Amino acid sequence: MKAVVFEDYKTFPTIKEVERPVAKAGEVLLKVAGAGCCHSDVSVFANATAETGKQTKPPFILGHETSGWIEDVGEGVTGFNKGDAYLVYGPTGCGHCKRCVAGEENYCENAATNTSMALGLGRNGGMAEYMVAPARNLVPLGNAEPIAAAPLADAALTPYHAIKAALPHLNGGGKYALVIGLGGLGQIAIQILKALTGATIIATDMKPEAMAQAEAKGAITVPSDENEVARIREIADGRGVDAAFDFVGFAPTIAAAQASSAVDSRVTIVGIAGGKATYDWYSNPLQQELTSVYWGSMTELHEVAAMYRQGVITPEVELYPMDCALDAYQNLVDGKLTKRAVVVPHMGE
Amino acid sequence: MKAVVFEDYKTFPTIKEVERPVAKAGEVLLKVAGAGCCHSDVSVFANATAETGKQTKPPFILGHETSGWIEDVGEGVTGFNKGDAYLVYGPTGCGHCKRCVAGEENYCENAATNTSMALGLGRNGGMAEYMVAPARNLVPLGNAEPIAAAPLADAALTPYHAIKAALPHLNGGGKYALVIGLGGLGQIAIQILKALTGATIIATDMKPEAMAQAEAKGAITVPSDENEVARIREIADGRGVDAAFDFVGFAPTIAAAQASSAVDSRVTIVGIAGGKATYDWYSNPLQQELTSVYWGSMTELHEVAAMYRQGVITPEVELYPMDCALDAYQNLVDGKLTKRAVVVPHMGE
Amino acid sequence: MKAVVFEDYKTFPTIKEVERPVAKAGEVLLKVAGAGCCHSDVSVFANATAETGKQTKPPFILGHETSGWIEDVGEGVTGFNKGDAYLVYGPTGCGHCKRCVAGEENYCENAATNTSMALGLGRNGGMAEYMVAPARNLVPLGNAEPIAAAPLADAALTPYHAIKAALPHLNGGGKYALVIGLGGLGQIAIQILKALTGATIIATDMKPEAMAQAEAKGAITVPSDENEVARIREIADGRGVDAAFDFVGFAPTIAAAQASSAVDSRVTIVGIAGGKATYDWYSNPLQQELTSVYWGSMTELHEVAAMYRQGVITPEVELYPMDCALDAYQNLVDGKLTKRAVVVPHMGE
Amino acid sequence: MKAVVFEDYKTFPTIKEVERPVAKAGEVLLKVAGAGCCHSDVSVFANATAETGKQTKPPFILGHETSGWIEDVGEGVTGFNKGDAYLVYGPTGCGHCKRCVAGEENYCENAATNTSMALGLGRNGGMAEYMVAPARNLVPLGNAEPIAAAPLADAALTPYHAIKAALPHLNGGGKYALVIGLGGLGQIAIQILKALTGATIIATDMKPEAMAQAEAKGAITVPSDENEVARIREIADGRGVDAAFDFVGFAPTIAAAQASSAVDSRVTIVGIAGGKATYDWYSNPLQQELTSVYWGSMTELHEVAAMYRQGVITPEVELYPMDCALDAYQNLVDGKLTKRAVVVPHMGE
Repeated sequence: MKAVVFEDYKTFPTIKEVERPVAKAGEVLLKVAGAGCCHSDVSVFANATAETGKQTKPPFILGHETSGWIEDVGEGVTGFNKGDAYLVYGPTGCGHCKRCVAGEENYCENAATNTSMALGLGRNGGMAEYMVAPARNLVPLGNAEPIAAAPLADAALTPYHAIKAALPHLNGGGKYALVIGLGGLGQIAIQILKALTGATIIATDMKPEAMAQAEAKGAITVPSDENEVARIREIADGRGVDAAFDFVGFAPTIAAAQASSAVDSRVTIVGIAGGKATYDWYSNPLQQELTSVYWGSMTELHEVAAMYRQGVITPEVELYPMDCALDAYQNLVDGKLTKRAVVVPHMGE
Repeated sequence: MKAVVFEDYKTFPTIKEVERPVAKAGEVLLKVAGAGCCHSDVSVFANATAETGKQTKPPFILGHETSGWIEDVGEGVTGFNKGDAYLVYGPTGCGHCKRCVAGEENYCENAATNTSMALGLGRNGGMAEYMVAPARNLVPLGNAEPIAAAPLADAALTPYHAIKAALPHLNGGGKYALVIGLGGLGQIAIQILKALTGATIIATDMKPEAMAQAEAKGAITVPSDENEVARIREIADGRGVDAAFDFVGFAPTIAAAQASSAVDSRVTIVGIAGGKATYDWYSNPLQQELTSVYWGSMTELHEVAAMYRQGVITPEVELYPMDCALDAYQNLVDGKLTKRAVVVPHMGE
Repeated sequence: MKAVVFEDYKTFPTIKEVERPVAKAGEVLLKVAGAGCCHSDVSVFANATAETGKQTKPPFILGHETSGWIEDVGEGVTGFNKGDAYLVYGPTGCGHCKRCVAGEENYCENAATNTSMALGLGRNGGMAEYMVAPARNLVPLGNAEPIAAAPLADAALTPYHAIKAALPHLNGGGKYALVIGLGGLGQIAIQILKALTGATIIATDMKPEAMAQAEAKGAITVPSDENEVARIREIADGRGVDAAFDFVGFAPTIAAAQASSAVDSRVTIVGIAGGKATYDWYSNPLQQELTSVYWGSMTELHEVAAMYRQGVITPEVELYPMDCALDAYQNLVDGKLTKRAVVVPHMGE
Repeated sequence: MKAVVFEDYKTFPTIKEVERPVAKAGEVLLKVAGAGCCHSDVSVFANATAETGKQTKPPFILGHETSGWIEDVGEGVTGFNKGDAYLVYGPTGCGHCKRCVAGEENYCENAATNTSMALGLGRNGGMAEYMVAPARNLVPLGNAEPIAAAPLADAALTPYHAIKAALPHLNGGGKYALVIGLGGLGQIAIQILKALTGATIIATDMKPEAMAQAEAKGAITVPSDENEVARIREIADGRGVDAAFDFVGFAPTIAAAQASSAVDSRVTIVGIAGGKATYDWYSNPLQQELTSVYWGSMTELHEVAAMYRQGVITPEVELYPMDCALDAYQNLVDGKLTKRAVVVPHMGE
């Protein structure tokens, strides 16, 4: 079968013919519906070295956002029917620590010694015609369209996790939420906040089109200029927002999130730009929490899939046949994508 | 000024001329905008005796759902401007127990020895031209219409409290909520669930018009017949709902709520019909919680008011001038009301 | 190897020579340290029929409370060293529903169609020289004594789960907890409450020795007589307790738990005697939650093991060599045990 | 009566004869039992100016940690008996915002426009023979010794609030807590953590005597040297602690707290030294929360008092008669105190 393989550190991926995998005990073989291209793939093939990339050691098949149809099951696996559509949970932990058994492999306690980070990051993922995954990593899609669903596994799960952890600050009437950075994850964050909370949603970005999209989803937008914080605080009753989500993660965006947030609020850094925030007792509103998040849990992916099945979350995608998979990555590298690129190995079949 | 006074046990109220009250230290004088007529008033004037009604001892002015405009403030009270509109929190506790200081006077630890239950239940309430209330009981309405707001203080606060306590069961995607009994409180419950959660809302009642109203608010309705529970469970993924709210409270409605709810769900009895439920380890889904609620907290009334100001909650009311206040109560007694009756002492001024 | 096998419905178990199992992919082979005898085993071999016992269909090896040492690992299993001691999580769910992936196999959403309930209940358990279990079911015991640890997997996990779910009612100073029924689970419940909360613990039972043990663990005891509820409420500030745990589950013990508990409290039925409780808006304190529990989660077993390793939980056990395993069950049937019976297959080795 | 008065900005307090206050409607007159001297008093009289100290404008009687006996009650106040002992909740908010009505005057939404911060900070406090306070600010001490109780109102309430907000991270078995800075608040923090959680408590300070006291209370101590973080992480299973409390608040102590804490942990800055922390997605453990706290709520002071009445919290105090009150402050300024100084206006009566 054809697969997009990361073959060596600092090397752009290639499309190769590889052997179709076989499901072992506890595993499932999926015929891949869609596999999303993610910035973290670029970071792996463009930047990682033998030193820094021990958990993403080549060669392996890329693709950590995958959906597919059941093709076969391994020994002892029951409860799956051929042709049914599923999402694949990506993170791979040790499998038996307190976090992993709770389906939180993204926070595996043995992360430092694991040999991969995810299906598609350090071991074979979904950018291929077929893929093998542990049965418990599969999340049912029911009758919902499976190809466009692929990005849910990361681009929706990550903001979902950030928002779910912040719900204690957003539960109830009269709350305010702030979304900074209106790319793919930020747009989905607005959909999730709209569905799960009664919060007034304020959104900000530098691109007018992104702001227009956010408004169409029900957010109030504020331009990202020098009056941004003052305008946000004014909208938020003068108190500031109860929860802020920064999908960029540069020092100035984190600072804006902090300055826009209230006493007893939560500021979550989601974007991995690596900006440095500062915090002190006098400058920050009392009991303001500053935190970060990484991906999400299996339970949360079940909840994300439920929202997609209800039609509440709709990732915006552009589809690439397998033969154009490398174009998808090149467009991502070149900043030419406005939607999530999804590789569709069986397009037209 | 004119006031609707409950003068003696087992006696229908009368309209009387009484002296306009004066705000003392810590209090505010309100010019009343609206005062809602509630079934619990009927229960007080029709059923209570010197024996059973110690906390609602006549005479006192009725009206425990009140809105109004600031007319004057007592000594030491600051931060209020004449003419500004406010809701009045009704419950009256001891004022200094652990519950009362947290604004949960509905659950006062000294309830057994208190001499009143609320402003308007055991001491003077809002069914008059003017009313005095402790400053801390006032909740700002901002620019929102104050007259129709009056019922929020009970008919919205009660379902809000029930729902807020159930949010841990409703947080996240793929949840289901059930509302039984689609009178005034049930309809507002649907609005609150819609605004604050992503739950699929299932609603049931015996009246088709009430069901139609619920559907217009976004609920899926199920007729209250012998297939009710099976249909609800089917809609709710076969698992049953995550939270059920029974606004009736008869034994059969509580039993239906229990039978329709999932493992690890919450069933809340809101309606005070007094039906007896049964519960045992084998018959009820594992870890199903059965509970009841009474009214709500001051913080929650602030949150209810915020939702009303956003236009998310809209109580349906019919207005009565002060001179027709007794007609409002008579219609309530006779079951002739389809909306909440609100007495408007200054109608037409 | 020798094993205690349940061979047919309504048949007392027998000791048989069976083949030593082999760990498959994702599994671990354990040399069994201890296997606890539980009342639910008796209920299975004494009462279940082909009709009622579909999920405990014979033949299978008993033992759902097991500890052991790593002997071998199946394909793909890493991170375990031969000779290290572990507890085994018992419940077996479908493995891929939202509950199972979160390690809550006790509440598997597909429970109705599963063919077993647990390792040792419907499929082979730990009452044998060796046992196979999925790697993720293993919980590390570190340097703590493994044989006496066996009952932790049920007799400690069950009260732990009940208490953990009640912690929101017990968090903070000035709280009260009630434990009804001071057998093995009740005694461990007291240790857990003492360790994890600041609650004043009130305990009640009909046996003076059990009460004395509870007092030695720091509980205040109240005899189970007609003044029980009044005395408990008096100790609990007149308000009643914040959380009650009934380890018996007869109608009168549940009723006593409810009557002893406060407004906004939680009453948990742990004991499976099947008594029927009643509940209504007027008779029960406002917002009192009535609920039940079944076993616990994988994460919780990790937390139980941590407490055992700290020396905070110490199950009381009496040990039986494999050849006397049937005596252990007979003594359990005859009500002759005062401590948990643990079968030790390699005693004296 | 005699009182310790702060008479002008940048001026050491004086003892003066002033008029005994009178309880107005809703208020209580207390005969003062004890009034604690706090560092924040020093900061007020030594540093504040007309510019920076608008909410602590002189003259006023100092003392924001006070206990006393009921002497008289104002109009409308019931439920108090002369001679009964109470603690006084200090913070003064607007009284009617969403925070204040919930008894969280420490986080008043109108803090910016309030004219005082607390009873004893901007308006008359408890360092006098008698004191007036709103009835709802009183928290019953029952039969517990009232004089030594005075510091509970701040020196115990502040760590209690910090810990209570962190309980979701400390609930359950196998948790670790870190206390940095073992002065008065840090020592009480250890008592509170010991009572309310099952966490292993690690404590660190530069003073060996303070470490010895912490060990006597059940903490494991780690010297504050260059190996501190490594030793703490080693004790905490290699993962790091689940919650850290920094009672100092210098940049290096906050950095040590962050470096010692686990993925998904909570780091709380309690000490107001004003050190600046940094935070970024890559350097800090994932989902580590960094936050601050200020004082606590009325409900929490009720819970603190309950713990004191149980004998679980015991502030260490040295007592000063009223005539030596200025010596107490001078010793505090000079760093000569090792225990909390409590002024006792009626000593020897």
